[in-house]
Amino acid sequence: MTFLYKADPARGEQWARLFAQKAPEIEFRLWPDIGDPASIRYLAAWQPPEDLARMLPNLEVVFSVGAGIDQFDLSRVPQRLPVVRMIEPGIVQGMVEYVTQAVLTIHRDLFDYAQYQAAREWREMPVRAAASRRIGVLGLGVLGTAVLERLRLFGFPCAGWSRKPRTLDGIDCYAGSEALTAFLARTDVLVCLLPLTEVTRGLLNAKLFAALPRGASLVNVGRGPHLNQDDLLAALASGQLRNAILDVTDPEPLPARHALWGHPRVRITPHIASATRLDTAVDVVLDNIRRHCAGEPLLGEIDRSRGY
Amino acid sequence: MTFLYKADPARGEQWARLFAQKAPEIEFRLWPDIGDPASIRYLAAWQPPEDLARMLPNLEVVFSVGAGIDQFDLSRVPQRLPVVRMIEPGIVQGMVEYVTQAVLTIHRDLFDYAQYQAAREWREMPVRAAASRRIGVLGLGVLGTAVLERLRLFGFPCAGWSRKPRTLDGIDCYAGSEALTAFLARTDVLVCLLPLTEVTRGLLNAKLFAALPRGASLVNVGRGPHLNQDDLLAALASGQLRNAILDVTDPEPLPARHALWGHPRVRITPHIASATRLDTAVDVVLDNIRRHCAGEPLLGEIDRSRGY
Repeated sequence: MTFLYKADPARGEQWARLFAQKAPEIEFRLWPDIGDPASIRYLAAWQPPEDLARMLPNLEVVFSVGAGIDQFDLSRVPQRLPVVRMIEPGIVQGMVEYVTQAVLTIHRDLFDYAQYQAAREWREMPVRAAASRRIGVLGLGVLGTAVLERLRLFGFPCAGWSRKPRTLDGIDCYAGSEALTAFLARTDVLVCLLPLTEVTRGLLNAKLFAALPRGASLVNVGRGPHLNQDDLLAALASGQLRNAILDVTDPEPLPARHALWGHPRVRITPHIASATRLDTAVDVVLDNIRRHCAGEPLLGEIDRSRGY
Repeated sequence: MTFLYKADPARGEQWARLFAQKAPEIEFRLWPDIGDPASIRYLAAWQPPEDLARMLPNLEVVFSVGAGIDQFDLSRVPQRLPVVRMIEPGIVQGMVEYVTQAVLTIHRDLFDYAQYQAAREWREMPVRAAASRRIGVLGLGVLGTAVLERLRLFGFPCAGWSRKPRTLDGIDCYAGSEALTAFLARTDVLVCLLPLTEVTRGLLNAKLFAALPRGASLVNVGRGPHLNQDDLLAALASGQLRNAILDVTDPEPLPARHALWGHPRVRITPHIASATRLDTAVDVVLDNIRRHCAGEPLLGEIDRSRGY
C-alpha cells in the first residue's frame, strides 16, 4: 500500500515523518520520486499531476491538502476516483481566529483608530453594541458554521446563507439564490466562506454590494476570484462599502502595484487565514484510508456534480 | 428621594430620560443644577465634588459611573458612605470584544502583516497553533474572568493572577506577589485588567517585563498609571517585548509628541475598550437603590481597605 504526496516539499518531509511514526505499514513517497507508479493507491496533492489517469493506473483515492478543491482540474480526475477535501481541526481553528479578529476589527472601528493614531489624535467614538452589528456568512460548510458559532457568543445577530437549506441553532439561515437579497439587506459585515465554483466566481461584485446596507463591510476568506476587485474599489470610493479585509486576492501574490495594497480601508493578508495543521491533517488522512479499506464512507468526499 | 448625576453632561441627559421612564418616582438632577442639596440621597459620578461631605449632608450611596474608582479621592468620601463600582453587561461585553481582538491581533501576527502591506509585500509566515500561545491575565475580577473564559474557547493555554487565591474552570490561577514571577514566566501575551491602587501603580515596569519570556506582548486595558511608558519603549527597543496594545495611557489624552504614538509595534486607542451601556447601567443603579432601600447588600460595593 503506497501513498504519494505531491505538494509543498518542505511540508512533504514532515508528512513523511508523521507517516513513519503513525502508519509505518504504508509506504510513503514524495513527488517527484514516485517509484513504481503501479503501486500507488493514494494521492495527496495541492494539484494532481496532469495525466493522472495514465500515470497512476491503480489510484483509489485523491486527497486535497487544502480545504478547497477549486485548484483541482476535476476533468482530469477519473469519475471513479473519490476526491476528498481537507477538513481538519487546524484549518477550522485558524479560520475561526482570523474571522473573529476581522469582524471585531471592523466592529470596534479599528480602521478609524489606526488612522487617528497615525495622526497622533486622541479621538473617541461611541462604542456600538454588538447587538446592533449584524453579521452574515456566505457558505455554511464546516468553516462557515464554526465561524458563526463563535461570533454568536459576542452577541452579534448572526445569519448564514447557503445553496441548500440548513438549520443552525441561533443563526438565521437563508438558502438559495432567491433568498440572497434578503440575506444581504440585513448584513452589516459580510464574510465570504463559499467554495469557488463556476456559480460563485465573481459573486462579490457591484450588484451584490448594492444589496448590502450602505456602509457595510466585507471580509473575504474564500478565494480571490470570488471578488471583483475593481467593483470593490468603486464601492469603497462611493461609500457603499466602508472597509474590507481580504485574505485572498486575484492573482496571488497580489502585484506590488495593485491599488488595493495602499488603500487605507483595506487590509490584506497573504492567504494565511488558516493552514492545515500537519499532525491532525495526517490523522484525518489516515482515518480516511482506514475507512476506505473497511468500505466505509469517506469524510470530506466532494460531490462532483456541484464541484465541492 | 433625589438622585444626582455628575459626569459627562450629554450622557447625563440620557440618564435623565431613562430614569424618567424606569423610575419616575425618583427625582433626577443633573450637575451643576443640584436644587436642594439636603434632599440628595444618591450620587452617580465620575469624580465626586471636592467637599462632598459638607455639600451633600444626607447622601446615602455613591455610585461610580466607571468600572474603576481610582479616579475617586476616597479620602474625601466619608467612611460611612458605601461606594459602588459600575459593573454592568455593557462594560463586560466591550472588554471581552477588545481584549479578544487584541490577543488575536498579536497571535495572528497582524502587526507584521500591516508592515508587509505597507511595503506591498506578499509574505507568508507560518500559522502558529493557539495551543502554543500562552495568555496571562493580571486581575481576576468580573472583567478578567470574562476575558479568560472567552479566550479559552480559542484553545489558548490561559492563566490568571490575582491578589487572593481564585479557582476558575480551565484557567491556571496564580495568587499573591510570591506567585507573580512563575505566572509571568509562562505568559506570552500579558493582559492587564487590575484595579489601580497604590500597590499596582507602575507594576508594568522593566522588572516585570524581564520576568516574561523574551518576545512577549502586552495588552494594557487597566489604567495608564499601571504602566511605566519609558520602560515599555526600552523593552520594545531591546526586543524583550515584541509589541503592545494600549487602550489607556498616562496622561490621557496622550500628548501628540509622545513617542508611543509613532511606534510601529504599539497600537493606541483612546480609552474605548469598553463603555458603560446606558440602559443596563441605569438598570444596575436602580437595582442597587432598591437593594439599599430594602437593606440588602449592594452589588459592586468596594472594599475601602484594599481600595477597589
